[in-house]
Amino acid sequence: MDRHILPVPLDKAYRLLNHGPTVLVSSHHEGVDNVMAAAWACALDFAPPKLTVVLDKSTATRALVEGSGRFAIQLPTAGQLALTHAVGNRSLRSDPDKLERSGVAFWHAQDDRLPLVAGCSAWLACRLVPEPHNQQAYDLFIGEVTAAWADERVFRDGHWHFEEADPRWRSIHHIAGGHFYAIGEPMRAGEA
Amino acid sequence: MDRHILPVPLDKAYRLLNHGPTVLVSSHHEGVDNVMAAAWACALDFAPPKLTVVLDKSTATRALVEGSGRFAIQLPTAGQLALTHAVGNRSLRSDPDKLERSGVAFWHAQDDRLPLVAGCSAWLACRLVPEPHNQQAYDLFIGEVTAAWADERVFRDGHWHFEEADPRWRSIHHIAGGHFYAIGEPMRAGEA
Repeated sequence: MDRHILPVPLDKAYRLLNHGPTVLVSSHHEGVDNVMAAAWACALDFAPPKLTVVLDKSTATRALVEGSGRFAIQLPTAGQLALTHAVGNRSLRSDPDKLERSGVAFWHAQDDRLPLVAGCSAWLACRLVPEPHNQQAYDLFIGEVTAAWADERVFRDGHWHFEEADPRWRSIHHIAGGHFYAIGEPMRAGEA
Repeated sequence: MDRHILPVPLDKAYRLLNHGPTVLVSSHHEGVDNVMAAAWACALDFAPPKLTVVLDKSTATRALVEGSGRFAIQLPTAGQLALTHAVGNRSLRSDPDKLERSGVAFWHAQDDRLPLVAGCSAWLACRLVPEPHNQQAYDLFIGEVTAAWADERVFRDGHWHFEEADPRWRSIHHIAGGHFYAIGEPMRAGEA
């Protein structure tokens, strides 16, 4: 584990996702690792922290999530734009070398097999909260966050520090077809 | 209707929400209008376009959504930061003058009573897709988008143009406690 990666208290975990970044969804089942990109991930609750993510039936990652009941949501950085686009446009089903060809390396928390993508800014390890109707009708999956980490070079003391970090640490926000925006400048709402 | 507000084709409506902005949720029921802020809104499907939004049981807006079966999701701009913070921190239940005091003005599409917040960058009118278990267990509401509009000064021809528009048009992305980030600069992922 990189010395810059620090645990995030669970009561602050929603802050990692609250600004709506595009994420990477990773999972492991029966010896197979995979990761995909997803723009449709969202916080759902504070305590215990929960989130939603949409996983299309065509994705190989979805089968790993359903098989293992676990997944990780992580935030790729502006420096990982090409990696994000690559894992979002290649499938392990048609391209067995997807991970190597996309430049993905994993790290693991202690002896956990859940694959975490190296170089991201934050990670949320999740336990699937089974909701078969949502999964079948809407491709909508609910996860309860069981652990979270962030790179202290961009998130520390419960706050993002995008404005002080190197621009390659900015979160990325997909629109369509390879068009993204990086997160921008901080704004503070005064007391109303 | 402002001359700058143009319809967005339903097959492009997901692009209004894909980059994860904080939104305003408005509704009308039996003579009562209200609007609240929500960071937890997310696209759910392309065609027909659907979205999810989390509405806490304590909110007055939720009762209007449940009563009428309709709501609108709209994107406040950086210029509406104070308005967004105000409608997110005041409740119609304890402050009957909430809307006036927060500086909210509505517009309406033709003779529809659904209130749309003036000055936003985009609007999605939604029909509630009733899912009582999600609503009760998770405060999670699903909407099907029935119409969408955007201000052509910042979204036109199916694309956001934040980088060319006045900075006050940027979408805003809440972290916690009045701390927001504006959306930043465009990035283009090359062919992998």
